[in-house]
Amino acid sequence: MEQKQALQVLEDIQKKMYAFGSASSALYLDSVTVAPKDTAEGRGVALGILAGEEHKLMTGPELSEALACLEEHKGELDTLHARQVEELSRSVGKLKRVPAEEYMAYAQLTNEASDVWHKAKETSDFELFRPCLEKLVAFNRKFAGYYDPDKAPYDALLDNYERGLNTAYLDRFFDVLRQRLVPLIQAVGQKPQPDVSFLHKHYPAQQQRAFSDYLMEVMGLDRAHCTIGETEHPFTLEFNNKDVRITTNYREDDVSGSMYSVIHEGGHALYERGICDEVQYTCLAGGTSMSVHESQSRFYENIIGRSRPFIEAIYPQVQVFFPQQLAGVTAEAFWRAVNMAQPSLIRTEADELTYCLHVMIRYEIEKQLIGGTLEVKDVPGVWNSMYKEYLGVDVPDDKHGCLQDSHWSGGSFGYFPSYALGSAYGAQMLANMEKDIDVWGPVGRGDLSQVTGWLREKVHKYGSLLTPDQVIAGACGTFDPTYYTDYLTKKYSALYGL
Amino acid sequence: MEQKQALQVLEDIQKKMYAFGSASSALYLDSVTVAPKDTAEGRGVALGILAGEEHKLMTGPELSEALACLEEHKGELDTLHARQVEELSRSVGKLKRVPAEEYMAYAQLTNEASDVWHKAKETSDFELFRPCLEKLVAFNRKFAGYYDPDKAPYDALLDNYERGLNTAYLDRFFDVLRQRLVPLIQAVGQKPQPDVSFLHKHYPAQQQRAFSDYLMEVMGLDRAHCTIGETEHPFTLEFNNKDVRITTNYREDDVSGSMYSVIHEGGHALYERGICDEVQYTCLAGGTSMSVHESQSRFYENIIGRSRPFIEAIYPQVQVFFPQQLAGVTAEAFWRAVNMAQPSLIRTEADELTYCLHVMIRYEIEKQLIGGTLEVKDVPGVWNSMYKEYLGVDVPDDKHGCLQDSHWSGGSFGYFPSYALGSAYGAQMLANMEKDIDVWGPVGRGDLSQVTGWLREKVHKYGSLLTPDQVIAGACGTFDPTYYTDYLTKKYSALYGL
Repeated sequence: MEQKQALQVLEDIQKKMYAFGSASSALYLDSVTVAPKDTAEGRGVALGILAGEEHKLMTGPELSEALACLEEHKGELDTLHARQVEELSRSVGKLKRVPAEEYMAYAQLTNEASDVWHKAKETSDFELFRPCLEKLVAFNRKFAGYYDPDKAPYDALLDNYERGLNTAYLDRFFDVLRQRLVPLIQAVGQKPQPDVSFLHKHYPAQQQRAFSDYLMEVMGLDRAHCTIGETEHPFTLEFNNKDVRITTNYREDDVSGSMYSVIHEGGHALYERGICDEVQYTCLAGGTSMSVHESQSRFYENIIGRSRPFIEAIYPQVQVFFPQQLAGVTAEAFWRAVNMAQPSLIRTEADELTYCLHVMIRYEIEKQLIGGTLEVKDVPGVWNSMYKEYLGVDVPDDKHGCLQDSHWSGGSFGYFPSYALGSAYGAQMLANMEKDIDVWGPVGRGDLSQVTGWLREKVHKYGSLLTPDQVIAGACGTFDPTYYTDYLTKKYSALYGL
Repeated sequence: MEQKQALQVLEDIQKKMYAFGSASSALYLDSVTVAPKDTAEGRGVALGILAGEEHKLMTGPELSEALACLEEHKGELDTLHARQVEELSRSVGKLKRVPAEEYMAYAQLTNEASDVWHKAKETSDFELFRPCLEKLVAFNRKFAGYYDPDKAPYDALLDNYERGLNTAYLDRFFDVLRQRLVPLIQAVGQKPQPDVSFLHKHYPAQQQRAFSDYLMEVMGLDRAHCTIGETEHPFTLEFNNKDVRITTNYREDDVSGSMYSVIHEGGHALYERGICDEVQYTCLAGGTSMSVHESQSRFYENIIGRSRPFIEAIYPQVQVFFPQQLAGVTAEAFWRAVNMAQPSLIRTEADELTYCLHVMIRYEIEKQLIGGTLEVKDVPGVWNSMYKEYLGVDVPDDKHGCLQDSHWSGGSFGYFPSYALGSAYGAQMLANMEKDIDVWGPVGRGDLSQVTGWLREKVHKYGSLLTPDQVIAGACGTFDPTYYTDYLTKKYSALYGL
């Protein structure tokens, strides 16, 4: 194959992958918004075929030949194509090492497991889910060997989600978190809690919808390129850098739930919207990793969205949306309420301070499961004792314990740490941002454009043109989790008068 | 290729076509409902690639070889496979005769033309659209020759939309309509019109939404398999027989608009829902033709939905939804109002009686355009004079005249007649249905299950397993348009006291 022809193949296949990806996304988006209830079967047929076509494109001879040709001429490629070749070669290599029949069997298993998990969670019946989880763990241990036989299995899985990530790095990270946050959480626990009752008055969905529109405006999300929908679980979905969707969920007895889910998903959306045009319709479109994505969403949600300057800036407008509910409530009281920290059972509802401990518990369990030192049957016991140890809470049942998250049922082992890493990256980005620009002056006037501008230059614009570690190096410098623990210590000391 | 292998190829390719079709449908549905405004470009890239993949599947050697093998063994195939081979061979043959570069150029042209038409319609500027329309006509004349060089060009296009249809058949049909309906419309025009003012009071969208839910329930549309959405133009979209969507549009000054669009689209939906499982994920899924589809939608909309027994049955409930707006209005007055017949300018807003004349005018113009006896530049003049002749109305501008419909800009010539044919088929089906079952007793009690049951047996269940003429033969017998003109004469004589 000639180099020119190889480049054409590369472009064509990436565009097809984009098209199939868009197709699957549209079918998924439909399924969680407006699709009739009993329509999963037909959609499954379509999605299965689309996934099969993607797999065929990635593992077919055409792409492999093109990649081989281009790797020979690596020195002549521009950065964009060099990165595409690098990323695709890596993905193709991993895919090809998984035997096709195992790939299919695994796809079927995750499909089934998702159903079983739903039922098991509903009835808090771990035994129902256990056989699935055992198979999922076994598959992932095997796949880890295909991905990289030279690595410990869990390291191979971590690297799969986040290139370069490993347990050595994460152990150091979580050690710092454990050492610094557990005492901080205990200290906070000794202090009186703020009044949060006004957050739980009646907030009609219609008023909350208008409030979401306002929040998106404050964040600078252009509605001609980003809409908001409603789904059971909030998420962000990008078709390309000019077409991004976020969703939220309105609970009429909790105004902060949807408020912060909008700001969180809005952070993901700003990342996707800020990615340069050059990488669109290629494998380099989209954020560079889950943890970098979470660094953005949690930056907007917590570091900006739960900061005192931001709340002071928007609060007069918040009161216009909810005049009855917030009558007599000061901006300071609102700020304290949305920052209340309290150990709890459910990760997705956890506050900024305790969140990372939820993640740490999952990390420890995954590490042992995939490492082979923990049996699936012992997960509930270990889960419950870790929640007691680190968060001081008693898990009443597995529904509120080890069955709460969907990740394992979908086959994701090694994914959780991203959530915590992203939070820590964000804190270090803030420190660097504060050296470069006046962060809090504009934020205190409700103007996020400088913050977003800084993040766009340091993070967003690259998409996956840079690897996660390159982006982190550029935006954070050498990663140091004490930026994060210092940030939390300072913030919660002020809030709780420690 | 072995027969067994050929059957497998046939199944695989049809499933892929289903998957690509579902993908395009989901992207389309998204685009007209929730997609952000400025996102057409990226979606266009995905849709273009999906269309290209479909074209490649249909014209590729794999399918052709499989079809050739199976045609050799035609006698050994069961009905299902025989029909699949027949349909696919026909489609593949036509597609292959269109040179790939012309196919691409035409796809680009219709894409452009749609934009130009939108602008031209907005500003009522036919000259802006004229060059596009000229190219579209030229392409279609050429394509007609590829489809079937032995047929007159317009006949080849008609046959493309509706197998077996031709101008001889349609000329006879429209002759009957013209002869019988023009005097009827004139007679109705001499009579006083019913009061329709109460249809145009303020009907809040929220109340209309609840009313739509009720109408879907009356029609027996299971919401677990059929949802309703809101779009500028109402439509029905089916993914498969267990996943159908309808849309409507709420105008707060017109309750009958959305009411009858829901019943119309509901008719399409019942057809798709009634198709048997055996043909799913094959080329035989979906209704057998546009006109048979319209026969169902217009049957429910007009023959049932605008009948006196149906209105008497649902009216007490209608008044519960709209107590203020319909206070003091009787069922009879409501029935008369929703059946008001009056010549008008816009096809999509036309009443049951005058509707077919709108279609006839388009048919006459298309026939001459494709036949080469009418130049594009003369379309507005001919349009306006025909509206004056048949409907007695003066067309004020092209926006309300020959620029009103999107069909030509999308490259559809030969599609319009289906609307009128479907209406006529429905009337003849009614006559046969009345011989078999008690139609109006149950309908008068708001029970449509017998009607739907009859249609399911005679029409719905086959999908495209039977050709359009086979379905018509089974449900109507020998087609005779006087059933339709008799039905209209009887109905409007009663309404207007002729």
